[in-house]
Amino acid sequence: MSSKIAPNTVSPPKKIKVGVLGATGTVGQRFITLLSEHPWFIIETLGASERSKKKKYRDAVKWKQTIPLSGLGLGGIGTSETEKISSTDLRSDDGKVADMIVKGCTPEEFKTCQIVFSGLDADVAGDIESAFRSANIPLFSNAKNYRRDPHVPLIVPLVNPSHFSIIPQQQRLHSPPLSKGFIVTNANCSTTGYVIPLAALEKEFGPIESVLVTTMQAISGAGYPGVPSLDILGNVVPYIGGEEEKIEWETLKILGGITDSETEFDRNGVSLKMFDMHQAGGRPSLRVSASCNRVPVIDGHMECVSLRFHRRPPPSPQQVREALSAFTPEIQSLGCPSAPRKAIEVFEEPDRPQPRLDVKGTHNGAGVSVGRVRQCQVLDIKFVVLSDNVSIGAATSSIINAEYAVLKGVVT
Amino acid sequence: MSSKIAPNTVSPPKKIKVGVLGATGTVGQRFITLLSEHPWFIIETLGASERSKKKKYRDAVKWKQTIPLSGLGLGGIGTSETEKISSTDLRSDDGKVADMIVKGCTPEEFKTCQIVFSGLDADVAGDIESAFRSANIPLFSNAKNYRRDPHVPLIVPLVNPSHFSIIPQQQRLHSPPLSKGFIVTNANCSTTGYVIPLAALEKEFGPIESVLVTTMQAISGAGYPGVPSLDILGNVVPYIGGEEEKIEWETLKILGGITDSETEFDRNGVSLKMFDMHQAGGRPSLRVSASCNRVPVIDGHMECVSLRFHRRPPPSPQQVREALSAFTPEIQSLGCPSAPRKAIEVFEEPDRPQPRLDVKGTHNGAGVSVGRVRQCQVLDIKFVVLSDNVSIGAATSSIINAEYAVLKGVVT
Amino acid sequence: MSSKIAPNTVSPPKKIKVGVLGATGTVGQRFITLLSEHPWFIIETLGASERSKKKKYRDAVKWKQTIPLSGLGLGGIGTSETEKISSTDLRSDDGKVADMIVKGCTPEEFKTCQIVFSGLDADVAGDIESAFRSANIPLFSNAKNYRRDPHVPLIVPLVNPSHFSIIPQQQRLHSPPLSKGFIVTNANCSTTGYVIPLAALEKEFGPIESVLVTTMQAISGAGYPGVPSLDILGNVVPYIGGEEEKIEWETLKILGGITDSETEFDRNGVSLKMFDMHQAGGRPSLRVSASCNRVPVIDGHMECVSLRFHRRPPPSPQQVREALSAFTPEIQSLGCPSAPRKAIEVFEEPDRPQPRLDVKGTHNGAGVSVGRVRQCQVLDIKFVVLSDNVSIGAATSSIINAEYAVLKGVVT
Amino acid sequence: MSSKIAPNTVSPPKKIKVGVLGATGTVGQRFITLLSEHPWFIIETLGASERSKKKKYRDAVKWKQTIPLSGLGLGGIGTSETEKISSTDLRSDDGKVADMIVKGCTPEEFKTCQIVFSGLDADVAGDIESAFRSANIPLFSNAKNYRRDPHVPLIVPLVNPSHFSIIPQQQRLHSPPLSKGFIVTNANCSTTGYVIPLAALEKEFGPIESVLVTTMQAISGAGYPGVPSLDILGNVVPYIGGEEEKIEWETLKILGGITDSETEFDRNGVSLKMFDMHQAGGRPSLRVSASCNRVPVIDGHMECVSLRFHRRPPPSPQQVREALSAFTPEIQSLGCPSAPRKAIEVFEEPDRPQPRLDVKGTHNGAGVSVGRVRQCQVLDIKFVVLSDNVSIGAATSSIINAEYAVLKGVVT
Repeated sequence: MSSKIAPNTVSPPKKIKVGVLGATGTVGQRFITLLSEHPWFIIETLGASERSKKKKYRDAVKWKQTIPLSGLGLGGIGTSETEKISSTDLRSDDGKVADMIVKGCTPEEFKTCQIVFSGLDADVAGDIESAFRSANIPLFSNAKNYRRDPHVPLIVPLVNPSHFSIIPQQQRLHSPPLSKGFIVTNANCSTTGYVIPLAALEKEFGPIESVLVTTMQAISGAGYPGVPSLDILGNVVPYIGGEEEKIEWETLKILGGITDSETEFDRNGVSLKMFDMHQAGGRPSLRVSASCNRVPVIDGHMECVSLRFHRRPPPSPQQVREALSAFTPEIQSLGCPSAPRKAIEVFEEPDRPQPRLDVKGTHNGAGVSVGRVRQCQVLDIKFVVLSDNVSIGAATSSIINAEYAVLKGVVT
Repeated sequence: MSSKIAPNTVSPPKKIKVGVLGATGTVGQRFITLLSEHPWFIIETLGASERSKKKKYRDAVKWKQTIPLSGLGLGGIGTSETEKISSTDLRSDDGKVADMIVKGCTPEEFKTCQIVFSGLDADVAGDIESAFRSANIPLFSNAKNYRRDPHVPLIVPLVNPSHFSIIPQQQRLHSPPLSKGFIVTNANCSTTGYVIPLAALEKEFGPIESVLVTTMQAISGAGYPGVPSLDILGNVVPYIGGEEEKIEWETLKILGGITDSETEFDRNGVSLKMFDMHQAGGRPSLRVSASCNRVPVIDGHMECVSLRFHRRPPPSPQQVREALSAFTPEIQSLGCPSAPRKAIEVFEEPDRPQPRLDVKGTHNGAGVSVGRVRQCQVLDIKFVVLSDNVSIGAATSSIINAEYAVLKGVVT
Repeated sequence: MSSKIAPNTVSPPKKIKVGVLGATGTVGQRFITLLSEHPWFIIETLGASERSKKKKYRDAVKWKQTIPLSGLGLGGIGTSETEKISSTDLRSDDGKVADMIVKGCTPEEFKTCQIVFSGLDADVAGDIESAFRSANIPLFSNAKNYRRDPHVPLIVPLVNPSHFSIIPQQQRLHSPPLSKGFIVTNANCSTTGYVIPLAALEKEFGPIESVLVTTMQAISGAGYPGVPSLDILGNVVPYIGGEEEKIEWETLKILGGITDSETEFDRNGVSLKMFDMHQAGGRPSLRVSASCNRVPVIDGHMECVSLRFHRRPPPSPQQVREALSAFTPEIQSLGCPSAPRKAIEVFEEPDRPQPRLDVKGTHNGAGVSVGRVRQCQVLDIKFVVLSDNVSIGAATSSIINAEYAVLKGVVT
Repeated sequence: MSSKIAPNTVSPPKKIKVGVLGATGTVGQRFITLLSEHPWFIIETLGASERSKKKKYRDAVKWKQTIPLSGLGLGGIGTSETEKISSTDLRSDDGKVADMIVKGCTPEEFKTCQIVFSGLDADVAGDIESAFRSANIPLFSNAKNYRRDPHVPLIVPLVNPSHFSIIPQQQRLHSPPLSKGFIVTNANCSTTGYVIPLAALEKEFGPIESVLVTTMQAISGAGYPGVPSLDILGNVVPYIGGEEEKIEWETLKILGGITDSETEFDRNGVSLKMFDMHQAGGRPSLRVSASCNRVPVIDGHMECVSLRFHRRPPPSPQQVREALSAFTPEIQSLGCPSAPRKAIEVFEEPDRPQPRLDVKGTHNGAGVSVGRVRQCQVLDIKFVVLSDNVSIGAATSSIINAEYAVLKGVVT
């Protein structure tokens, strides 16, 4: 962790005003649901397209969450016993998301927000997110637009929050340099799920040499309206546009380190640090092959993973199980409130995890579940991993990233 | 092909009387549906458990096929224009499956049958099938009980009908030796589907070194009542008991050859030929790793396959596509009436094949469909294969095996 | 039947050139699938939107039928033994739908067609269909735009083809009067299914007084992309926009007769005949109450029907079963080639019909299936009816209507 | 309410030890899940079949709930702020359901329980439940065996808890008379859901004359393994054995009153009070007609209801909406802890409620949701009602009934 990031703050932070871009969309609804129960963050501004602007949120949104919109408060509900407000009291609260007036997606309308979350679609996210950063607003994005930018970290909060260390450089390179604004992205949902056990295994057993992953992805991963029912009811579609490529290179950026560029320099002639997707940050080579499928499941991406370690002999299945179960990411020790109680839940039952029963697990969707750890006849080890694509695979990751940034002083 | 097997007969065979064991079960219903339109085979006897015995078939069966039982005739409908009976005429025919009286599963009750198909459950198939062989009846079984027997061929008709050559030895070893009876098995549905493109590729490019296969299998593969709806609706179950092991060793037996045993001899002291699952018949080593999943699809097993060839450099994706599309198994050239028009249909569209749209393909379920042929970053090539688990994955294979045996004179 | 309609022609008609509007859509694909095997009709022209125009059909369409597009011929395959062309021969035919060049939806591009079928979406159907009629082209439409027109018949071919008798008036009222052009519509899919048994019962037992119908409708009824999977997977949606109203008034128009208007007159001062949705053509009052639901079924609308007859005492369930089973609509006796072999299949099993098993029935989707006929504790009789919404509920009805018009000389 | 029932107790009751019969089954698992968070009731004994006896619960059960078994405590967690134990603390508690040793289903093994809940299957419930009553144990059953008994109340807690008044007679008639033991049943899941709005409407507008209800029932209503997936995936089954009859007579028993029998007398010659399913307790006639369907939904029964009131003119849809929304059952005013915050949630959106989004509603499954209230063209009013069949339709009803009995002093 770079020394430029402040040490862990001990006292819980003050209430922090946050905004949500793309508030009426699938990811936006998920941000709102999570924030409405958040101990620190208070929903200050909701932004959406022209069609929704100036409407009450309840009238602008086609609410598709199983938790009723009418009961959602604005968050900032605290964590200590004295601060705690029961969800019962909350419902009689004056401040309700449903009654908020939706704003447009301009930095001016979000100027009172200390943090902004983006659930924008990729076709509009590029310009809007850039404008927010230029307006000196810290932006945590779920969109794919800046994921490949060599100066933007792609952070899976249970894996590589240390990549926040590149933020000062991102700010310095901006013209004019920024004091507070930046963009941090989180990874594609299918990458996020399987890269968590990979990171746990690399931490314990050293670098992985190759990974074959076959995904069975839930329909909620495609947003709304998303997948037509005629395409997926009683069916499997062996293709998700661009998904396999995303898994293959995002894995390298997330598991790789940051290198000194030999060709790029800042205005003072200092060699820049950057993410290099191809060299994977100087780490030993890692080859990734992904096959992506859509299946008729509402929530929860299942991924069958086979992998080979560099080290010989490789660890046994039992050693792998223990390493996964023992994995404790930094966000847990640091005290991020949305960190999962358990990062990786390991099932012993032969037929678990399953999306319908286990997607929330004991980690409430903020960790992942692994099962069927066993030897692979071709590579070394194979297992199945289940992740909640609408939680850790999307909005939850952005929120934990923001919590981490607050605790580390990246957001002030 | 052994010289003990007769050359291709030119003229179409006479009507052949066949029986079906396990006639009320899922596989039995499928046998009956297919046989009712067969040009050579005529349904002579249906056998089921004590509970069904002596009842009319319509009263004994819980019919679960989409083709109405009431319209099914007894088969033997010919193929030439003059012989052809339209399905319209058939419906007014006196001979109807629905009106047949169900018999028990004893050889005595099937003594007028020249061929018997077994759709029995594994828990009863062992003794019954053995008794039929001892009664000198050629038996084509879909059950798993004798698949591992080193003297019983495990035949995927598009791949290894040459393994019929061991039948004379199977008959000679029986006590007393048999003139007509034998057991031939077909493979597990998930093995059958993916081993067909493997065979096509080995034929063109030489031996495969390793295969990783991840399956997404339809519920019909589990029979009826089979998978409880609470387990699979909107869900994926990452486990099918015994399935991964079956794929792993069946592949070796099917793709392997027949070896001379160095330790087993017949009563004349002649070294026996036998299948050796571990040595794979002297062929270069082949490692297989399978991960099996159940998905909420009615019919059609999807399998994501990655493989590595022994030969370097490996063929390109385009060469693989061409080899798959050109594959012409012996059953086609021989003229088996249930052989698919096309063994392997190769899709160019990025999102095909899909079970709901393509399970019958242009091959009516008797071939397989392959799509998404592309390079694998870890092994050499990856693709997806779709097979109709209730057709080529089950009864259709038994029937083509029987057709082959008739044309080759193994059944007389 | 009006004397203006010619008597049944005995000899099979010559080949008739037909066109399809909206050829790339869901209904259009269904028209093409059916027409490719039609004995009389030959596909001459396919029309679609600007986006598809001038492309090969295979490149313009996202084909979603389970029958592969590559095998479809142009129809006109005859019915007599000598004329019969097997589907095998057809596949090597030069004339294939896949290779046709898509045209725009203007009458000029269809001027060689003797009949045009419309699978257009309602948002464009109004003007286009009107232009085709004005160009003197007989048009059979599946769209809703002209269904309520008091001079356009709304014909369920198994129920009220006698309503063709208003066509001469429709032509005479046009300015200038038409010699050949007209518009005939078929009914909404959910109306079509349940009105067939109603008609059968009215024929035998006299007028029905009230009907309560609760539908469970398949997703294919909404077209493509249609229902988002997130809305319907593992769910029921108790609402289909406008559907209940359609059932309620379409039933009255279809089961009602044609009345002399007391307020509308033609240019010669002759009182016009017209459909009166409210008076239901002078028949005794009929009240209809519909509740419509969408369910996660691919094809097949299930409808739970309760009804009360005017006549007291009402018929018994057994009498109802017999009347339904015996129902023989005029299209059967007339010899329409697409008429179902059996109009209403009555199931005795308590748990049938079911969409997955019975949607095609023994009538290949051109009739309906009824089951669970029993007494209703509130009205008289209740039962369930299943219809194939993409066959008799859509394109099949248009095609049978056209066959009827040909045989009756309405189309010349 | 009979004077034999004690007035509302003000202070919250002490911890009450409860047992669960059929603890490993679907309903049993649901009882345990609910009781593990109950403020008063503490799980004391779990009973199951011989196969499970003496095993740890975690080893005996095939756990199918989405809440992990490992986190479940024994209940009795209190309600006041001081008593409150967070679910977090609970998980580190020593007392866990998973570790309990399963007992047999005999009264001896439950003798320390003050209340026993039965989730037994109907094929064994008769004798076991009778034995528990004879052993003087208050038994709240979800099984159907004693529902028709004229001395056993059939209680939907939001509708007719006043029927507890017959308990003293049930105890007195027993030989020997009982001081504490009795049997109370709750209704079938599909009856429970729709009878709640009926009761609300009768309370406001007087008796209903006739009801037509068409159900679309979730698979969880059939238990586990329950409905085979091949029967219901992408399908609707228009039949559930015995279900329509249950709805038709249970409605009469629940909405009817208790009458003096003119033919039955106790040993002192006193005329007995009893439930009369046919006379419906002297209330004006009520005719009920049900059509039951199984649909591929996990949880949540949808029911389309049309009804006619005795009173003319009938209330308007808006009056109906207001009456439903205002309905406040006695269990709410009495303070039953499991009573829903809102008994009937009325939706204004045209396409709600839906099982997937609304089954838990704002009432956490203990109330019902109503939508689409509108005029019926045949009867008076129609609407759709959604209930959580595994909560208010099953275990939750038994538990609220027990809470009511405690507060009223029926259980001491």
